[in-house]
Amino acid sequence: MNPQDSFVWTTFQPKSFWARKRNVVLKNTVPFQLEMLKTTGRYEAFDLKWHPIYDDEPATWPVPKHLFWDSDVGKWIEGLAYFGDLEDGNESQLDQAAADLVQKINRAQQEDGYLNIHFTVVAPKERFSNLRDLHELYNAGHLIEGALAHQLRFKSDEFMKPMKKYIDLLHKTFGPGEGQRHGYPGHPEIELALIRFYKRTGDTKALELAKYFVEERGNSTGASGKHCYDAEAEARGESKYTAPSYYPAARSYWYNQAHKPIIEQETIEGHSVRAMYLLTAVADLAVLDPKTFGPKYLPALKRLWNNMVNKRMYLTGGIGAISKWEGFGIDYFLPQSTDEGGCYAETCAAIGVMMLAERLLQIELDGHYTDVLERALYNAMLTGMSVDGKAFTYVNQMATSEADASNRREEWFECACCPPNVARVLGHIGGYLWTPKTDSETSATINIHLYASASLDYTLEGTQKKVKLSQTTNYPWEGSVDLALDNASGVDVDVNLRIPAWAGDSWEITPKPPSASLSKGYLHLDAAYLKSNPNFRFTVPLAPRLLRPHPFTLQRIAVLARGPLIYCVEDVDHPWVTDHFKSLVLAPGITKAGEQLSGHVVEEEKTDLPLSEPYVGLTLKRGGLVIPQDELLPALESKGLEALIEGKEGVDLRFVPYWARANRGGKHQMRVGIRTLD
Amino acid sequence: MNPQDSFVWTTFQPKSFWARKRNVVLKNTVPFQLEMLKTTGRYEAFDLKWHPIYDDEPATWPVPKHLFWDSDVGKWIEGLAYFGDLEDGNESQLDQAAADLVQKINRAQQEDGYLNIHFTVVAPKERFSNLRDLHELYNAGHLIEGALAHQLRFKSDEFMKPMKKYIDLLHKTFGPGEGQRHGYPGHPEIELALIRFYKRTGDTKALELAKYFVEERGNSTGASGKHCYDAEAEARGESKYTAPSYYPAARSYWYNQAHKPIIEQETIEGHSVRAMYLLTAVADLAVLDPKTFGPKYLPALKRLWNNMVNKRMYLTGGIGAISKWEGFGIDYFLPQSTDEGGCYAETCAAIGVMMLAERLLQIELDGHYTDVLERALYNAMLTGMSVDGKAFTYVNQMATSEADASNRREEWFECACCPPNVARVLGHIGGYLWTPKTDSETSATINIHLYASASLDYTLEGTQKKVKLSQTTNYPWEGSVDLALDNASGVDVDVNLRIPAWAGDSWEITPKPPSASLSKGYLHLDAAYLKSNPNFRFTVPLAPRLLRPHPFTLQRIAVLARGPLIYCVEDVDHPWVTDHFKSLVLAPGITKAGEQLSGHVVEEEKTDLPLSEPYVGLTLKRGGLVIPQDELLPALESKGLEALIEGKEGVDLRFVPYWARANRGGKHQMRVGIRTLD
Repeated sequence: MNPQDSFVWTTFQPKSFWARKRNVVLKNTVPFQLEMLKTTGRYEAFDLKWHPIYDDEPATWPVPKHLFWDSDVGKWIEGLAYFGDLEDGNESQLDQAAADLVQKINRAQQEDGYLNIHFTVVAPKERFSNLRDLHELYNAGHLIEGALAHQLRFKSDEFMKPMKKYIDLLHKTFGPGEGQRHGYPGHPEIELALIRFYKRTGDTKALELAKYFVEERGNSTGASGKHCYDAEAEARGESKYTAPSYYPAARSYWYNQAHKPIIEQETIEGHSVRAMYLLTAVADLAVLDPKTFGPKYLPALKRLWNNMVNKRMYLTGGIGAISKWEGFGIDYFLPQSTDEGGCYAETCAAIGVMMLAERLLQIELDGHYTDVLERALYNAMLTGMSVDGKAFTYVNQMATSEADASNRREEWFECACCPPNVARVLGHIGGYLWTPKTDSETSATINIHLYASASLDYTLEGTQKKVKLSQTTNYPWEGSVDLALDNASGVDVDVNLRIPAWAGDSWEITPKPPSASLSKGYLHLDAAYLKSNPNFRFTVPLAPRLLRPHPFTLQRIAVLARGPLIYCVEDVDHPWVTDHFKSLVLAPGITKAGEQLSGHVVEEEKTDLPLSEPYVGLTLKRGGLVIPQDELLPALESKGLEALIEGKEGVDLRFVPYWARANRGGKHQMRVGIRTLD
Repeated sequence: MNPQDSFVWTTFQPKSFWARKRNVVLKNTVPFQLEMLKTTGRYEAFDLKWHPIYDDEPATWPVPKHLFWDSDVGKWIEGLAYFGDLEDGNESQLDQAAADLVQKINRAQQEDGYLNIHFTVVAPKERFSNLRDLHELYNAGHLIEGALAHQLRFKSDEFMKPMKKYIDLLHKTFGPGEGQRHGYPGHPEIELALIRFYKRTGDTKALELAKYFVEERGNSTGASGKHCYDAEAEARGESKYTAPSYYPAARSYWYNQAHKPIIEQETIEGHSVRAMYLLTAVADLAVLDPKTFGPKYLPALKRLWNNMVNKRMYLTGGIGAISKWEGFGIDYFLPQSTDEGGCYAETCAAIGVMMLAERLLQIELDGHYTDVLERALYNAMLTGMSVDGKAFTYVNQMATSEADASNRREEWFECACCPPNVARVLGHIGGYLWTPKTDSETSATINIHLYASASLDYTLEGTQKKVKLSQTTNYPWEGSVDLALDNASGVDVDVNLRIPAWAGDSWEITPKPPSASLSKGYLHLDAAYLKSNPNFRFTVPLAPRLLRPHPFTLQRIAVLARGPLIYCVEDVDHPWVTDHFKSLVLAPGITKAGEQLSGHVVEEEKTDLPLSEPYVGLTLKRGGLVIPQDELLPALESKGLEALIEGKEGVDLRFVPYWARANRGGKHQMRVGIRTLD
């Protein structure tokens, strides 16, 4: 459950890993993004005046350039609202901007409750005429999430009120009734927002609408006997051979996860962010009403999750191999870069993986979900922001190439979904750390998912009894975590502590619990142990290790990892690189060492990142063999690599965490998976 | 040069390898295809009556199902005409059908010379309104080629006459003149047909038109300042976001090799058959007029050829990785099957590779072209027909999969380009064996490209002097070729004999020539040697060897080859296979042996193919390790393959030539490249 819904707040220790990240976001990212809202026209857009960009041809037909502006504003307010615990000196200015924007949003609302920039200013006659492509309901969803965060932070209903009115209109408009529109958004997002709205306010219209959108999805005869996207396309007079440029083919609705009802979907398909947002809402329903929606949706949720994690996820936790539809390829199709077949791994999709994993953990406490969540958090999501919080990536490929520049960090994007999404996820990152639960008036359980220097203040539901749990650690750089339970009220507190799968059996708890049981990756520590040992230590070694992708991926590579972090090589440390490390091969001695890399790797604390952000760098001594391009000259009678490396001397390879890439200059050449001979 | 143009005829020794193939085609394929023409409606179509299929929706918009019917008829007549040297008992019936069809074609011609089924019967107002998609000029090209073969075989101008008239109309219609249409075919073919027509008849209109089509191609401002495909789409009222379903994206004219002028094209792109037919015509122009077109087009021809062979060709000589546009992927993107990312390798595209290689050999005698030609001939083309000549493949993947059934042989296809194309290429296969050239009234040179039991009767140009060259060999099963020069007229004959690159230095000529020089893969044997040694022997060992694709393909596989043949494994010999050999790994002992496979492989003459067609089967003793699927269970912490094969016992693997696959029953599971550990 997200903190803003349950009012459980995590406090990070000043200057700890996540505290530094959050401070950077509040200090640099949030003000900069406000500036961008202002200079691009977004800030004034809810004034409903004409902006010159509205005349532009769509860069990606049929999506006008300004189509996401509502959501950009909503996400900025949401992000800002999550930093109420920090002080930075800018607050009054930022808060004032948020208040100003909320006023504009209120004024922009039409009499009947309708609220959307494009369909009020540019195309007022085309409301709800293209649910498939035009992000109308997606924008509504992000405004709702913005309102929820705004209410929590500012204790005001000023943003909630127009959203309630808009939800009323949508609830009247969409549904199974005869006079109602039968359809659902092309880009899911409003579903999870509506469920959050319901959880905060108890508004059953919001819940009903969310359920309708989820349950109607993929109905092939829902709109006058037709698929609703066919029906609306026909109403628009669109040829059935016309397709948005990001569509795999005309009317291939698996792009939108709308090719069949969710319960019938066998594989995870299409646009990866849409898929994650949709399944997050589905999981929310199963959490909310396990009796009705558990049996109905859990099989599909698990099937699609497993298909994704086992066959369609990069070792960074990133998802999406195909640029054209920003989404999934076929099973095991996970090339490293655009010039090797594709690699996308959008920042927002990684955030979606985290959201879905967090929901699944509420359904079933299983460390598998947490392992994926942590992998995506530290690698696929965190890599999306520069260390100084001023530049972002939209796609996060495993290797750069000459084929595109999409690995470079940018200050902003025309479709600016990712930067504010990173800001808001770092805003409420504390919500991913742990889940407290009241078991009775005198007992509680806390599930600890992630390690971070932070503390949780929890008041047992229906009581005044408080419990405080703290972690102190230098994770992810060091593997020991000191935990302290402050339990003055004397209630029984049980803890389920996650043990990462990558730790194997090499972890320990001190003092050693007399009867600790490990179940699905969580160690149960009972109240008796914790009463005797309110201070205990969890230790997990962070020895560097090599990961291999599944053989069916055909990727003849190894990936260097340390603890939860995936590493990469960058040209800035290897100035001889001209081909994006394509002709680099890991020395056989390294790969033969398997996971016993200790003799080959040097671990070193480094401070060469901006803001002197500390990290552990890794060096593989004589770990790389470089094959000159002309020796690789292709032929119908190729001899393979082994013949080419005979007698070659290994060079040292320096690795940095994948999230730290593209922060120290260079030519923007980078690679995660290094070619191997075996 | 094709035999039908130069009147050089190759005679195959009865019952030799290619004679058997040709007999099967004449006995089974040609009559069966006539039957198909009749039962599908094609045979009567030139009667210009309505056929029910004309009412059908296009299966692949905007291409009606019957759009290629003209070409199917043209190619059937062309194929039949190339078998004039054989007797089979059906001739009078087949010849009568050809005569009947030619009559129909004559009657179908419109007064102004126009000749096309669809645009006469179904859409008479839409002539030349969609050059990009509707194969109007492609059909014309195949009719022209049919007429040329028909004239050669039947010594009649009955088919040539309507084609001449149609060419006149096209020449008047298309061209740079003010009143003329500025455009060119979406599917090249007519260009090479027009050049052949010119070479036969001297009709300069045909040559001018071919030149115009080639030179205008890719002009971005050719039609009223626009790309001609844009201009015609606008005239049709087509949205610029509408694309044929086989297009990579709307208006991506690289699909048709029309994105820029040919001389500016850097990489080989788009639909692979179109690319090959186009470049064949370009090479034809360079052969025909080397002074004008050599400097202009040779750099592009070589650049595109090298890009294709070095980076976009399968080890079988097949081209085209992408099913959607039946064409090329990015550099080194060569997955083995649909479920591994794609593999197409259309039979017609392999024929196109052979045609282009044959033209390039005329420009420059270089064994590199011949090696590719031979690879494509024995593997990518020949695999397209069953041993009994009754079933065909359209695509020729390196591995089957559950993802599609496109590796199965079919009797016929709705788009039936491949079956008659194989028939016609086997009809004139002799044209690929050698190229004789008159140097003076008393001297000639014969370039020998391929080995086959066949003889060439050559009369020196402008003389009555005859030379006969014969080969006797059991190639491709045995590596010795007995050559005999019958030179009663006493002229000086030089021979350039191709030495395959795969032979390395392991070949010999006996008697040993005193001063033989090897240049670009061709051994020069001078007239003096041949006078003393009219009978000589060429020997090349056919030891089985392993090939590896270029490391940048990321294909961690090895391919078993013997001489010019690529081999594969089939489930019919390995009944335990259920996963298309996905979890099969070559035993490390095999791959470490590199090319020295002799201790591991058993070569065996086999007769288990239909018609007892003989071949050499290969068995890798204890060559395969099978990893059960559940041991491959994926995870975020995968260990790689090596750990999984420890202690596993190797199983024998039986290989058959790739062209012989899918002839002996089974479940249609097959694989060419076997996964390796190194």
